[in-house]
Amino acid sequence: MLIATEGAARRGMVERLQRALGFGTSVAWTGVLVNPTLVSVEQAVRDLEGCDAAVIVGIGGGSALDSAKAIGLGLRSGTDAVRRAIGGDTVPGGASLPMVAVPTTAGTGSEVTPFATLWDDESSRKLSIAGPGLYSEVACLDAELTISAPHDVTVSAGLDAISQACEALWNRHATVVTDGFAIRSLQLGMRALPRVAASPTDFDERRAMLQASLLAGMAIAHTRTALAHSISYPLTAHYGLPHGIAASFSLPAVLQFVAETAGPRLAYVATALGFPSIDAMRAALERLLRELEVGKHMRLHGIGLQEVVGLGEEFLTPGRSDNLVRDVTVSDAVAIATRALGVLGSSG
Amino acid sequence: MLIATEGAARRGMVERLQRALGFGTSVAWTGVLVNPTLVSVEQAVRDLEGCDAAVIVGIGGGSALDSAKAIGLGLRSGTDAVRRAIGGDTVPGGASLPMVAVPTTAGTGSEVTPFATLWDDESSRKLSIAGPGLYSEVACLDAELTISAPHDVTVSAGLDAISQACEALWNRHATVVTDGFAIRSLQLGMRALPRVAASPTDFDERRAMLQASLLAGMAIAHTRTALAHSISYPLTAHYGLPHGIAASFSLPAVLQFVAETAGPRLAYVATALGFPSIDAMRAALERLLRELEVGKHMRLHGIGLQEVVGLGEEFLTPGRSDNLVRDVTVSDAVAIATRALGVLGSSG
Repeated sequence: MLIATEGAARRGMVERLQRALGFGTSVAWTGVLVNPTLVSVEQAVRDLEGCDAAVIVGIGGGSALDSAKAIGLGLRSGTDAVRRAIGGDTVPGGASLPMVAVPTTAGTGSEVTPFATLWDDESSRKLSIAGPGLYSEVACLDAELTISAPHDVTVSAGLDAISQACEALWNRHATVVTDGFAIRSLQLGMRALPRVAASPTDFDERRAMLQASLLAGMAIAHTRTALAHSISYPLTAHYGLPHGIAASFSLPAVLQFVAETAGPRLAYVATALGFPSIDAMRAALERLLRELEVGKHMRLHGIGLQEVVGLGEEFLTPGRSDNLVRDVTVSDAVAIATRALGVLGSSG
Repeated sequence: MLIATEGAARRGMVERLQRALGFGTSVAWTGVLVNPTLVSVEQAVRDLEGCDAAVIVGIGGGSALDSAKAIGLGLRSGTDAVRRAIGGDTVPGGASLPMVAVPTTAGTGSEVTPFATLWDDESSRKLSIAGPGLYSEVACLDAELTISAPHDVTVSAGLDAISQACEALWNRHATVVTDGFAIRSLQLGMRALPRVAASPTDFDERRAMLQASLLAGMAIAHTRTALAHSISYPLTAHYGLPHGIAASFSLPAVLQFVAETAGPRLAYVATALGFPSIDAMRAALERLLRELEVGKHMRLHGIGLQEVVGLGEEFLTPGRSDNLVRDVTVSDAVAIATRALGVLGSSG
């Protein structure tokens, strides 16, 4: 069973794959939403139950892969299992259909994480499911599949990878192994992302960016994300801000906040990345965000100082913000988001 | 069942661990050889068969961990299985007793590889066994356990880690993931090793070196090693040259050889490591080898130009030298080893 977006179907990707697999032996479902909801997943499971699929092939960006994970869980273990996972139960190995993940954006790393994100239809709240059962059996990465992604999707996905790598580094659960993944991810991604944005068909840079995304995914698979992601959720939920923009605009401000108490840890990271100081790393992140016009996206979505201050405690999601190596209060989070807007010239 | 060296027993490590585990429930075997032989492993399996061990705990350097792997395989699947593995059969998952690996040197990374090295008692030839069944279930890394290692052991083990990381990088089987491990390993190890050699009780540097060793092990678990290791085997077999010295003296010369045809690949590696050029990386490796007196060890073991030239085709071990990203002939290998001696001032 192929799970993909309508766009992938329109671009002929689904049909090509079905032809290769044999139409008689495959089914395609192309109802993936940009921000998949629980109701849409439950509906898909009901529609697809009769197909008796043996393997799920998810093709697309993070939304398609996360939808495929949730649908695979629902098909094998029932929609109750999806609801229990949202309630906090770990998805055990074998609870979901075997899955092949084929990312067509370089960003979420969902192909190598045991996580999927859904959204509550009514409250717009972010819902997460997690557990070893959500790892794909096979991840198939081909940079050519990312070349047709639109500019904004490329940028937002790429910024998500950058954010994930940063969040794995300033994380309480960081290990020498996740550091290895995250540092290499940033080395590749901070260089490749502006080049990919400027030259979308540059295959070498697309490949570097896909590698950066893969490595960031492998890092957060162990650490999970932290404050910058926690700050992003209400901005996406209430203002529809694309995930990668929302998860990255605060990175320089979070870095500065962490550096105040965890200087040696960040100095180690900055050195490994070839920066002469933490400040130089922060400046490089700011340059990247400016170059990719992150501030413009914030303004286009109507997000200014007043909106940020109003979100208050929604910025702190347990299991995310508390992964940060420094304790953080609601007023810290608001101050960080405010400072971040100021840096990007979006606080007016 | 604890498998350790006589030295570990003498230093009280085995007794402390047995006390913690309860003497009644544990057995210790401390017959590990510096270069473990097939006959010694077979003898150990016969001696220990009656103990009915459920778990093997290997404590020590690479020799102890590799002995524990081979003995665990022999105890669960019989010594015939060890011989079949030497003949080239992959050791399948579950073929060996569950193992806990506790390295006391920072070098081999054996705690995270599916390999073990044995030596033929008669021909002095290196024998390898490999397969998923040789992965430890648990790897327990504690830098404090490495502090008591003697200077020469520390240096040789550390150089093995440096060599493994290099060999994973100029390897046909390298992936973005093994690159991530190997680059981070070299970042940590090239800085820490001379410091550990100069200040053996510096805990932070010991920890960095143990991390470098872990990451190098995770890299070669996927790529295996390459030409520098292939060149090392006859030098260890015929002249008793310590493994890490033998596996590292040729690194600058191998780097130069590879750079002649795989410049872009190595330029990418050099840049990631923060070197302005491949030449600068080579120079740094040469400085490291000089500082650690690798040339002196070669001379002390009676290895000069004549000895190297005489080894000829023994330098090429299939499954190792052919992992190098550049094709290599016997005369290439002899030329590389000769040049390496010259660089270290050991060719006289």
